[in-house]
Amino acid sequence: MISKDMVKLGTQRSVIREIFELGKLRAAIVGRENIHDFSIGNPNVPAPQEVKDAIKDIVDNESPVAYHSYTSSPGADETRDAIASSLNRRFGTNFTKANMFISCGAAASLNICLKAMTASSDDEYIVFAPYFSEYKFFIEAAGGKFVMIPADTEAFQIDFDLFEKAINKNTKAVLINSPNNPSGVVYTEETIKKLAKILVEKSKEYGEIIYLISDEPYRELVYGNVVVPFVTKYYDNTLVCYSYSKSLSLPGERIGYVLIPSEVGNFEDMFAAVAGSARILGYVCAPSLFQKVITKCVDVMPDLTIYERNRNLLNDSLTKMGYRVAKPDGAFYLFFAAPDGDSIAFCEKAKEHDLLLVPGDGFGCPGYMRLSYCVQTEQIERALPVFQKLI
Amino acid sequence: MISKDMVKLGTQRSVIREIFELGKLRAAIVGRENIHDFSIGNPNVPAPQEVKDAIKDIVDNESPVAYHSYTSSPGADETRDAIASSLNRRFGTNFTKANMFISCGAAASLNICLKAMTASSDDEYIVFAPYFSEYKFFIEAAGGKFVMIPADTEAFQIDFDLFEKAINKNTKAVLINSPNNPSGVVYTEETIKKLAKILVEKSKEYGEIIYLISDEPYRELVYGNVVVPFVTKYYDNTLVCYSYSKSLSLPGERIGYVLIPSEVGNFEDMFAAVAGSARILGYVCAPSLFQKVITKCVDVMPDLTIYERNRNLLNDSLTKMGYRVAKPDGAFYLFFAAPDGDSIAFCEKAKEHDLLLVPGDGFGCPGYMRLSYCVQTEQIERALPVFQKLI
Repeated sequence: MISKDMVKLGTQRSVIREIFELGKLRAAIVGRENIHDFSIGNPNVPAPQEVKDAIKDIVDNESPVAYHSYTSSPGADETRDAIASSLNRRFGTNFTKANMFISCGAAASLNICLKAMTASSDDEYIVFAPYFSEYKFFIEAAGGKFVMIPADTEAFQIDFDLFEKAINKNTKAVLINSPNNPSGVVYTEETIKKLAKILVEKSKEYGEIIYLISDEPYRELVYGNVVVPFVTKYYDNTLVCYSYSKSLSLPGERIGYVLIPSEVGNFEDMFAAVAGSARILGYVCAPSLFQKVITKCVDVMPDLTIYERNRNLLNDSLTKMGYRVAKPDGAFYLFFAAPDGDSIAFCEKAKEHDLLLVPGDGFGCPGYMRLSYCVQTEQIERALPVFQKLI
Repeated sequence: MISKDMVKLGTQRSVIREIFELGKLRAAIVGRENIHDFSIGNPNVPAPQEVKDAIKDIVDNESPVAYHSYTSSPGADETRDAIASSLNRRFGTNFTKANMFISCGAAASLNICLKAMTASSDDEYIVFAPYFSEYKFFIEAAGGKFVMIPADTEAFQIDFDLFEKAINKNTKAVLINSPNNPSGVVYTEETIKKLAKILVEKSKEYGEIIYLISDEPYRELVYGNVVVPFVTKYYDNTLVCYSYSKSLSLPGERIGYVLIPSEVGNFEDMFAAVAGSARILGYVCAPSLFQKVITKCVDVMPDLTIYERNRNLLNDSLTKMGYRVAKPDGAFYLFFAAPDGDSIAFCEKAKEHDLLLVPGDGFGCPGYMRLSYCVQTEQIERALPVFQKLI
């Protein structure tokens, strides 16, 4: 007998994948242009020219042994240096390469951190709805307990009353994701400050550090004048999980990092635990050519023109039609309420018009729907009459 | 408190890494050319020209959205197809893309398979010494028990008497690695046949499939007319873990696969469990650009000229001096006995001459030493007098 849990995890396609597959099926019947598919968060903006230039520069001018060899497990020194310096320039921090562990993307980073921290099966991880559905599986795979705080559906910040009540002596860490998937909402500085204050107090009360894990693949995707607070500046015991998947449109390349500030309690043990955990999850090193590419492109920022245009068009149109929309300041998601509160029924009805949305239920937030707007603007224009019809 | 196990795993550098670091330290003092460093298995033959051509062809002629996007989790269809067809051409097999799960290299493949199979903490995995030291950590991380069969130091094949005695109702799988790290020995067809026969009998006896996991990163690195038996042809319940790290000199790129033949019992469950396990270890997909590179280079074979010359020179010289050497048919390792049986003392003495070897103790085979000959031939020529002095 093999592992039933793994069979189940491999068989149960996520709801998002199910809807995506349906879209492909319907496209084959009625034509791609007649499908309003807003189900998947796959960046449609190509990687910036600098990435292509960097790849060609490296393969043209360096030796394959230099760019295809193993790096040390936390990554190449030059890559770790370059990222630390870039963060310092942008956020006024004081990181060095000693704080950087280059990883195979955000999912790898999260799994590595969770495995590094989990010391007992009593360890609890607090997550705020709406949350990225895989978190639950990652936390349980590391041997911890998943604790969900229901959504604050007023502002999609944090329901601090429920949060404070959920913290106990077993709380190992709190996992946040801002800009958020699925809501597109950015936590305000006020939210981060209040969160930090509670974590300081509760760590003191229980005599054990409560860590903060900040999952930030969408950090660079914000619109207007919105600023994403850089979390390590507000709370010492923060680990940042980052990925270049969205900011440089490199989701397939699996490259990102874990940032472990020196201020983290027992810093040396934490860094060692991250390395140990990466080791036994099978991560030998992050892809070496792309470590070099990142080194060259560390200050390249994404072109947000299309995403911002899409977000404005959708937000304005849906609001005008009378939909209740969460403040869409970041990522490429719009989260909005089903008019009658039943998101599953709404999504089913939408399907009849070949409009594909993801119900919020799988993100711990029933009554709402996620719409990914990393699509062509024309697709949105074609879909607007359907949204009008459905309200 | 964080995980003590992970801190330990991250702090204890492997013996190999320790020796490698010593080499760097000594090189800074006496000069790189005076260090005889045979500690690390990092290919020194550059990736073939076809790899560079493939990278440039893809970035010049395809869209970044096509080559940097997520693939489905088992890999891009074209890559899975290409590898299956290449295996069929070379080994007369009948694989299709449905048998291929593209992964982030052999360490990822092994961890994925072990996690997929382990259903209970009683599950045992049998490994034959000498074995790659990380196996123990991988098996324990998956929640299984590591069972080592001592080395057959006559031929470095398998001690079948000890093996048969070790099998019991908890035996989940047997893990082999041929060509072998650290011995460089290739299992003969006779060995594989006998192994298969026992596994068939014992699976029947206990009424449970005993799987065979074949870790084959060195499959393409063999010398003379030696043939590496293709294991799935001898035993139905075989999973192959492969990596392009050594065959295409791409260790840093983390690209390989798990091959799951349709003949594997409960094939669909096993494939699903592999997918589920990859999912919760944080492997979203294998690096996408290199999936395309592999598709184009699937039939490219490594240039073995340097390795073969090094192997012949070392084997002939050491044998002539009177050292007892394991038959070095594959990989880029030579395994030889300490003249007085004390490999740790021999390695310490060698260090005084700046000759860096890895004692076999960490590979479960005390009394022997591993020598990596993926080095410049001149380094071997310079080191030979030291070997002469030490015997």
